[in-house]
Amino acid sequence: MTETTSDELDERCAAAQSASEVARRATTRERASWLRAIAAALDSNVDELVHIAAAETHLGLERLEGEVARTSGQLRHLASVIEEGSFLELSIDHARDTVAPRVPDLRRMLIPLGPVAVFSASNFPFAFSVAGGDTASAIAAGCSVVVKAHSGHPQLSRRTTSVIDRALDEVGAPIGLVSLVEGTGAGAALVMHPVIRAVGFTGSLAGGRALFDRAMSRPDPIPFFGELGSINPVVITPGADSARGAQLAEGLAQSFQLGAGQFCTKPGVVLVPRDSNVERHVGAHVRSANETLLTDRISAGFVEGVTAWQRSTGVELIAGEMTHEPGSVRSMVFAVDAERLTTDSDALLAEVFGPTTLLVRYRDVNDVPRLLEDFEGSLTGTIHAEPDEDVSSITDLFVGRAGRIVFNGWPTGVAVTWSQHHGGPWPATTSQFTSVGATGIRRFLRPITFQDAPEAQLPPELWESNPLGLPRRIDGELSIPDRRSRSS
Amino acid sequence: MTETTSDELDERCAAAQSASEVARRATTRERASWLRAIAAALDSNVDELVHIAAAETHLGLERLEGEVARTSGQLRHLASVIEEGSFLELSIDHARDTVAPRVPDLRRMLIPLGPVAVFSASNFPFAFSVAGGDTASAIAAGCSVVVKAHSGHPQLSRRTTSVIDRALDEVGAPIGLVSLVEGTGAGAALVMHPVIRAVGFTGSLAGGRALFDRAMSRPDPIPFFGELGSINPVVITPGADSARGAQLAEGLAQSFQLGAGQFCTKPGVVLVPRDSNVERHVGAHVRSANETLLTDRISAGFVEGVTAWQRSTGVELIAGEMTHEPGSVRSMVFAVDAERLTTDSDALLAEVFGPTTLLVRYRDVNDVPRLLEDFEGSLTGTIHAEPDEDVSSITDLFVGRAGRIVFNGWPTGVAVTWSQHHGGPWPATTSQFTSVGATGIRRFLRPITFQDAPEAQLPPELWESNPLGLPRRIDGELSIPDRRSRSS
Repeated sequence: MTETTSDELDERCAAAQSASEVARRATTRERASWLRAIAAALDSNVDELVHIAAAETHLGLERLEGEVARTSGQLRHLASVIEEGSFLELSIDHARDTVAPRVPDLRRMLIPLGPVAVFSASNFPFAFSVAGGDTASAIAAGCSVVVKAHSGHPQLSRRTTSVIDRALDEVGAPIGLVSLVEGTGAGAALVMHPVIRAVGFTGSLAGGRALFDRAMSRPDPIPFFGELGSINPVVITPGADSARGAQLAEGLAQSFQLGAGQFCTKPGVVLVPRDSNVERHVGAHVRSANETLLTDRISAGFVEGVTAWQRSTGVELIAGEMTHEPGSVRSMVFAVDAERLTTDSDALLAEVFGPTTLLVRYRDVNDVPRLLEDFEGSLTGTIHAEPDEDVSSITDLFVGRAGRIVFNGWPTGVAVTWSQHHGGPWPATTSQFTSVGATGIRRFLRPITFQDAPEAQLPPELWESNPLGLPRRIDGELSIPDRRSRSS
Repeated sequence: MTETTSDELDERCAAAQSASEVARRATTRERASWLRAIAAALDSNVDELVHIAAAETHLGLERLEGEVARTSGQLRHLASVIEEGSFLELSIDHARDTVAPRVPDLRRMLIPLGPVAVFSASNFPFAFSVAGGDTASAIAAGCSVVVKAHSGHPQLSRRTTSVIDRALDEVGAPIGLVSLVEGTGAGAALVMHPVIRAVGFTGSLAGGRALFDRAMSRPDPIPFFGELGSINPVVITPGADSARGAQLAEGLAQSFQLGAGQFCTKPGVVLVPRDSNVERHVGAHVRSANETLLTDRISAGFVEGVTAWQRSTGVELIAGEMTHEPGSVRSMVFAVDAERLTTDSDALLAEVFGPTTLLVRYRDVNDVPRLLEDFEGSLTGTIHAEPDEDVSSITDLFVGRAGRIVFNGWPTGVAVTWSQHHGGPWPATTSQFTSVGATGIRRFLRPITFQDAPEAQLPPELWESNPLGLPRRIDGELSIPDRRSRSS
């Protein structure tokens, strides 16, 4: 296994520092062109890249091709987001010279934080890796990026880096805008490196917490935007179960087995009525083939997790089976009565990464809000209900415990749009921001205000004439430029 | 000294939890009425409150009356900010049913975090205390607040709490929306209390860091928005010094002696040309009277700080003198050649709270950017220059090291407007947000997204018809409702 040396780390960080100085001065249009160049390079190298990825991750070619498209789409989306300009949060308050004390002219915008460390994830070798969402958000913001490669796909990480490096070079992006380090030691050192101004992380609670603690222990603590773990509770009401229980069973089985259950939004705990159609039918859709998970560590974690469930009093294996073939796992569905949650909630409500889910049978749907009170933060909360059922108290509980509330659908599948939120209360994430979608850019920005600045000292975004045609707040009033005058 | 007991702390936190549930469901209009009720109560009790404050803080009545007006103005400003509605960051992306995979309907808004702990400051017994900016931002966001009283003004903290408590009760705000705890132990426990979801802090680097470390050590770390210390460098160019050095000397003297130098934006280090008019004239404006600082600890810190300067090689006392009267201090101005910065920057570039400033004499204005590279983050950076001087490299250095860049003015005086930013890189603040002005509300909010939600499960802010007439982003396009239709 390759481990980046301390000298190499220093070199990459120094290059990232220089690149970040260029990136922050670059125009939004230039940064958008960098994002599109990375997107184009991924798309045109898709065949080579997915073959490397498939060999390293055991994910299928089709899934991986889809993920490349998602990743390049994400880069292009963020290019259009920064071109729109709202992300700068431009605001101008003109001086008020006739009041005492005089109120000065104040002009505010967001500027990039500086070099960002990105820890890539095992389960998305493209979308949450070298050229993934954190990297795209950071470049969109005007930051450079040092990526810590995931040990589950080192070859792919290197190859992706060199593909995007060449693409960036061709469009005149600064050298060192995106670079790669490898190894646990290098990752730990990266979080402490003086030039690094923020961290983006997607991974496990244990690994994330350790890096979070390091980032906070710095002489100058830096923001740590981490996605750490989520059980993504699903509630199926009696009405939904009786109206379409068989169909829900199939949907659930698809969702928890998607990518062998290795999604951060996998439905991990499903609250169903006693004697539900969902429980009756789910087994028919549970795959019996052996599957290889992303890494040996993830396989071991899966076995540990389902073993803990099995040992917990009252838990029944209702579909699938444990395989004892080394390195392989099989889909498994468990069920338990809701009353058991109170006695062993730590084990039962822990995230188990991989193709499994736990049905929790409730006696009365009116008990569901009380049951949910014991749940920690999740990325998502899902409700399947019929139109005549009042689920407002369940929605309300989820508002306090989840980042996205899904109605009559499944949490897997995270659309990349302006309104997406991929985040949630601890331990889902450490932060008040999304890691997917337009607003993720805000993680890597900070405000600055110019007071009574001569126009020559202002960036053009804050010039009185608004030469770039950007949305701005003027004296408290939001104003959107006419699109025609803008494009002229 | 009163110390809140552990049981009392639990009671206040439980009440804050209940109040926060009511506050998050309250309409924006209701929350605005709470803010205005607090403002009106402060204004109508101004005489009583400033007399209590003057006795406890040694700040003058006129200054304190001004601060009450600032504080009530701040509350009313935030009421109008939330009524405008942009702070909700509403965004709706309609479903795209014809693409594969289908893109669901996604609706995003910001919601309150929950109960917030606010640590009030010694130097602003109103504006950064019980009813100050952090409290106002948190209530505006829909959070409840538990304030840790500053030991420098306990009576005022209690009286302010009871004044606003009555006012809040009269307008139907929930009991426990704002409550008070006292004592260092209670403050430390407050940061660890399970119901607390965020911390706002204004104070010293040492005290702030200790509380920051506690907040980060929680099983579920919570955001800590702290303002910890700032030296607020000022650069005076040769052109400015020769054109208006005498006037600048007077302005500097006013700024660093304002409130006996006890402002977080006090100009602590001033880069001047050798043999400057500023240095020649500043002494004439330095007060010789004894002054009493806010607390004994602050007096002791002042003496320590100026003593460390005096002991540093090459530092000269050029105006004022040390007084040996116990509990009193006098204004003092020091000067040192820029070359000395490299040998003793820790002592010379430390914040000294109180009526003093350090002139740093540079040989060549072209050296100034290099000198500034050694400066840590500050709330402000100030440039005094003539129109024909190119200061762009100085501006650029400040962009990386300050939150507000002031041209031809002084950093003291922080206007409360939409465009204000009061924050800066560590150690000025821990965060990417302001603690003064409209956007400070964002600290106490987090996003949530509803996916394919029936309208009955959505808050009215996200209904298709936009019944509240709020600014929203629809399918990526920002749209501002017609003001006339809105008021109808």
